[in-house]
Amino acid sequence: MHHHPENDPQYTGLTVNEGVASPPVINPYLQTRKKRQTFSSSEYAEEIRKGNITVLSQAVTLVESQKPEHQTVAQEIIEKCLPYSGNSMRIGITGVPGAGKSTSIDAFGMHLIHDRGKKLAVLAIDPSSERSKGSILGDKTRMEELSREQDAFIRPSPSAGSLGGVARKTRETIILCEAAGFDTIFVETVGVGQSETAVHSMVDFFLLIQLAGTGDELQGIKRGIMEMADGIIVNKADGDNIDRANLAAAQYRNALHLFPLPPSGWTPKVLTYSGYYKLGIPEIRNMIDEYTDFTRKNGYFDARRHSQSRYWMYESINEQLRNNFYQSPEIEAALKEKEQQVLRSEISSFAAAKQMLDLYFKK
Amino acid sequence: MHHHPENDPQYTGLTVNEGVASPPVINPYLQTRKKRQTFSSSEYAEEIRKGNITVLSQAVTLVESQKPEHQTVAQEIIEKCLPYSGNSMRIGITGVPGAGKSTSIDAFGMHLIHDRGKKLAVLAIDPSSERSKGSILGDKTRMEELSREQDAFIRPSPSAGSLGGVARKTRETIILCEAAGFDTIFVETVGVGQSETAVHSMVDFFLLIQLAGTGDELQGIKRGIMEMADGIIVNKADGDNIDRANLAAAQYRNALHLFPLPPSGWTPKVLTYSGYYKLGIPEIRNMIDEYTDFTRKNGYFDARRHSQSRYWMYESINEQLRNNFYQSPEIEAALKEKEQQVLRSEISSFAAAKQMLDLYFKK
Repeated sequence: MHHHPENDPQYTGLTVNEGVASPPVINPYLQTRKKRQTFSSSEYAEEIRKGNITVLSQAVTLVESQKPEHQTVAQEIIEKCLPYSGNSMRIGITGVPGAGKSTSIDAFGMHLIHDRGKKLAVLAIDPSSERSKGSILGDKTRMEELSREQDAFIRPSPSAGSLGGVARKTRETIILCEAAGFDTIFVETVGVGQSETAVHSMVDFFLLIQLAGTGDELQGIKRGIMEMADGIIVNKADGDNIDRANLAAAQYRNALHLFPLPPSGWTPKVLTYSGYYKLGIPEIRNMIDEYTDFTRKNGYFDARRHSQSRYWMYESINEQLRNNFYQSPEIEAALKEKEQQVLRSEISSFAAAKQMLDLYFKK
Repeated sequence: MHHHPENDPQYTGLTVNEGVASPPVINPYLQTRKKRQTFSSSEYAEEIRKGNITVLSQAVTLVESQKPEHQTVAQEIIEKCLPYSGNSMRIGITGVPGAGKSTSIDAFGMHLIHDRGKKLAVLAIDPSSERSKGSILGDKTRMEELSREQDAFIRPSPSAGSLGGVARKTRETIILCEAAGFDTIFVETVGVGQSETAVHSMVDFFLLIQLAGTGDELQGIKRGIMEMADGIIVNKADGDNIDRANLAAAQYRNALHLFPLPPSGWTPKVLTYSGYYKLGIPEIRNMIDEYTDFTRKNGYFDARRHSQSRYWMYESINEQLRNNFYQSPEIEAALKEKEQQVLRSEISSFAAAKQMLDLYFKK
């Protein structure tokens, strides 16, 4: 059986940058006063557009910060970078832990940089990440080769207290990376809660990494994810696992046929590959290129981006409307008891809702 | 090839009650003053609990009405009936047009009434129904036998201007029907927009009707629906179509295996049957009974109902918060232009959202 590093004990911990030399993320607000450079938002934007990775990192750190003064500057930088954004291929990548996501991103990213001359940013959405622990995603120790590339920019997931916050900051980071000249953006996620839905709504192509599973059984796919996928790639198609990988791919193709054509009009494809042995990687890129050509021609590529921009505007509005209601102290106090009344069948769901809304709108 | 009445020309129109004698729905507000009976909400509730179908119909008409004075009485009746509700099996039924839904409901309903001694209410959710045209669902001409049964109560979909409104009125009608002694409730839908999601969130068991499809191809399933199904039943397993129906059933079983077990812990089953020739009907009932026993034992049945009650409370709150925002005249006026600015990349989605919210909360 071939050696797969995901199974090595040292890769199972939540460690970031342990033992591997990599360029530090410069956070001007954690350094001593002597070294701190204070740029205006215009200067940030100018340096970013020149491709200055150091300044890009600093700007992304501002975007990720929860402090209001950082947020103000960050928003100005974003607005200045916005006209220079949009020129990249945004690819979402998901897969269960153990599917070999980091190794695959490493292999795929190196191919794009070396064989296709791309500049690649790797971002991550992981709402469970905490400041102290870091996230298992965007872990440079697991993307050994990419983390040493000049043309690769890797960031772990922001932590923001809610999926909505994390998704927003990631989308804003995409704007900055595109303004800095990155023409390919990966957004990876590990399948916690609704994170795949968030990633799917900010990318042009959604890639699902699967394994062949054990014995006769296919590896399960989280409900709702299969239908989001524009492509499914079955990993570890190497050595004596090749037959099982091919069989799994055939089964996924059959399952996809049960569904009508997605709105893109493009039939999602299923490929096999090996992230560790770097087999089948160019074919994955070709599939994505094929999809891009097809959807640019039929208008879906642009329609999807417009629809996503609209979605994020309305999603932000709706989230803030809810926050304003549910975080109101009077509402918080009354809500639990109202819910209990509903569960005890003392009042109907709708009567309960009406009472809560009357309370809120009287203010 | 066997004769299937769904393909007869006279069944394709949107006609209600055409040419078939059936008990009229008595609407006290459309009759002359001489015949109108004005009950108090307590009297309505009392008659409903005695199983008075005429009064039940009148109460449901009040629930469905958009007039504020009707709504006030309706809400009182609902609150009075609420303590007597809950004692039924609620079954959601969906399937594409042509799958034979009406014939199947007719056959299945007759079996429940005659062989199982049940009292059955058949409700419908069809957000596209308009007052003048009526809905193709709940069409008594298509449920010939059921429409003549004393122990069956059939209503077409309410029309309410939005799926949320239709779903709410249906849920309220369920409360009244249960108080009137109906121990089985069907809620059917035809798969328009999010109507399956609405139905799924108000029933105990969600049943999907499929066909074998033409040639080698399986009939497509709308994205997201397959994962909602607690059972899939493949119709027209009769005559020379039996083999294809069985093959389709096997393919759906394979596809279901790709997904992890649903929260119920019960593996969704796939059966074949014939609605027109009344074959395989008891087996469908047995499957539902099996599911009910299983989920009552493991606590999921009650947990699902609690979760649904909570869902409808929060869904109503969130819908009203959105309505209050989006229907505000200042907001309506500014929103379209703000959206255009986002699509032209003049401002980011989040900046646009913030500007709209600042406008709203300053009021």
